[in-house]
Amino acid sequence: MAPLDKKNSRATLKDVAGEVGVHPSTVSRVLNPKTRSMVSESIANEVEKAAKRLGYTVNPFALGLRTQRSLTIGVLIPDLTNPVFPPMIRGIEHGLARGGYTAMLADSDNRASEERIIVNRFKARQVDGLVLATAQLSDDLINECADDDTPIVLVNRSVDNPAVPAIYNDDEGGIRLAVEHIADLGHKRIAHVAGPQNLSTGFRRYKAFVAEMNRLGLEVDEDLVVFSDSFSEQEGCRKLGALFETSKEFTAVIAGNDLLALGCYDAMAARGISCPEDLSVIGFNDMPFVDKFRPPLTTIRIPLFDMGLRAAELMLDLINTGTADPLRVSMKPQLIVRGSTIALDDYIG
Amino acid sequence: MAPLDKKNSRATLKDVAGEVGVHPSTVSRVLNPKTRSMVSESIANEVEKAAKRLGYTVNPFALGLRTQRSLTIGVLIPDLTNPVFPPMIRGIEHGLARGGYTAMLADSDNRASEERIIVNRFKARQVDGLVLATAQLSDDLINECADDDTPIVLVNRSVDNPAVPAIYNDDEGGIRLAVEHIADLGHKRIAHVAGPQNLSTGFRRYKAFVAEMNRLGLEVDEDLVVFSDSFSEQEGCRKLGALFETSKEFTAVIAGNDLLALGCYDAMAARGISCPEDLSVIGFNDMPFVDKFRPPLTTIRIPLFDMGLRAAELMLDLINTGTADPLRVSMKPQLIVRGSTIALDDYIG
Repeated sequence: MAPLDKKNSRATLKDVAGEVGVHPSTVSRVLNPKTRSMVSESIANEVEKAAKRLGYTVNPFALGLRTQRSLTIGVLIPDLTNPVFPPMIRGIEHGLARGGYTAMLADSDNRASEERIIVNRFKARQVDGLVLATAQLSDDLINECADDDTPIVLVNRSVDNPAVPAIYNDDEGGIRLAVEHIADLGHKRIAHVAGPQNLSTGFRRYKAFVAEMNRLGLEVDEDLVVFSDSFSEQEGCRKLGALFETSKEFTAVIAGNDLLALGCYDAMAARGISCPEDLSVIGFNDMPFVDKFRPPLTTIRIPLFDMGLRAAELMLDLINTGTADPLRVSMKPQLIVRGSTIALDDYIG
Repeated sequence: MAPLDKKNSRATLKDVAGEVGVHPSTVSRVLNPKTRSMVSESIANEVEKAAKRLGYTVNPFALGLRTQRSLTIGVLIPDLTNPVFPPMIRGIEHGLARGGYTAMLADSDNRASEERIIVNRFKARQVDGLVLATAQLSDDLINECADDDTPIVLVNRSVDNPAVPAIYNDDEGGIRLAVEHIADLGHKRIAHVAGPQNLSTGFRRYKAFVAEMNRLGLEVDEDLVVFSDSFSEQEGCRKLGALFETSKEFTAVIAGNDLLALGCYDAMAARGISCPEDLSVIGFNDMPFVDKFRPPLTTIRIPLFDMGLRAAELMLDLINTGTADPLRVSMKPQLIVRGSTIALDDYIG
């Protein structure tokens, strides 16, 4: 049975660091016999004195077993029905399990009000840390969490504050691969079904689309850029459908994610437009099952499981040592060419 | 901020019911002014005296706000990467939200040892109830939970004990629809790629397959029944592949669920066998995206969102009144015919 004791209020590694005026990682190095020699003797002495004065001690072997630990990490997910999240969560679970931790998940359905309720309930349930896999969280809530003693890790987004630990997509690099692929196939009239602009992923991918088109000397026609209200199949269908109504010509669509790309398939099917013969479509994420679709989807692969795993490792470092190095990791995307994109020469529309 | 207070040990509705020797629902009716008249005056008097003696009071308006409630329900999921669960969880979340509750989820990856750890951590985190969406839980663990004060609801499985609240699939009815559909198409040599037999869903669907084949006078060839180790695409591919190696003739496959059916597609693709021209395939669940596959999958639809919603309603009834009526609900399945099954007359294999 897991311990019921509440978190106690003993001094943290951060307190010691603050007292001496050094980074928590320095305190961590000093107090670990294996790494003490990496720190100058005078700083090491100061840290040891401060740790003693504040009553801070660390026992790495007993760390995971100390009864004030709940061995539970709260994980906030924005949309459990989006297939990108289950593999990411599996990665988090596998990583946490290595440290004896269990993930408790909650799904906000992309509602900011719900996110605050969930974070507060997680804290009330005395989780040892929070992984926030949401792109919509207000910086206010992130900053509140960062100020407080509960370690947090962002996954799938970053914030401007470099002190907030994060494992994130390289959205710019991913969109660069997508635009280059489409341009290499000879397409020039390229539409973008963008994600919601209040989500960091939707916003950054749209900005990257414009930047990359400009870099390649391709025209960004504002009439060919549509913004969806959610990352969903329904919105992808609705927005590409609206583009078709304008009778503007285009031969390729870059979708903000795979669910939007799937919605593009629906809009095309409803009008007898063939993919890729009439229109090429590329997604983003390489979510499970897109290789089984009709046609199999060309997309940008994000290492979803590995992102979760790295987020868990970062969290365990934060819990066990008070810091981590590096604090922020950007994951490398990869182009996966399947059946939904063809060269303009093969275009029969 | 959610309350931090621990659950106190004041008398419960169940205690009052036990004292008088009536069902908890009777106590609930007596103590609610709107329903008091439904109970005989002598019983009502006895209940009120017992409630007073034990110090039990109920204030329906303050119920959701009482500080000893965590307003959090633990939900145990066996496999988050199986797309049947996200819609079911969404249903649970929607239902719980109506009562001001939040779901906290944990994924056991189908490991029984992990399920016990999760249940214990949920209890240590003082959830107000447990929804167990797993088919593998040992009856021991369910019985332990049922004996304890924390209300539980099973979803997606039932147990023999009729006192355990449950919302479950009608697996027998679903398999009946599948076998009838395949038989109506003229198929006689019918294979079954069954789910794991240590999971109630896999076991019940296999038993129903045999019963329904017998009922229709069709031969169950033991060589055409294979049992997978998990409900996964990989296992579906491996097991149908093994069937192909036997060179036994068959014209249709009934898969234990949609992931197994998808694995059948993979095994066929690897051998240049076409679906449905060479072999008809039917799945089970109608999980998200199977309508987008190549070919779109014929399957048995289970009302996943509604199952979750009903489970949440049952949980809220248990929390608020100590009981629910009915305690067990079987959900009606539906045949969804798409492109993966054709009549034997059209079979060209």
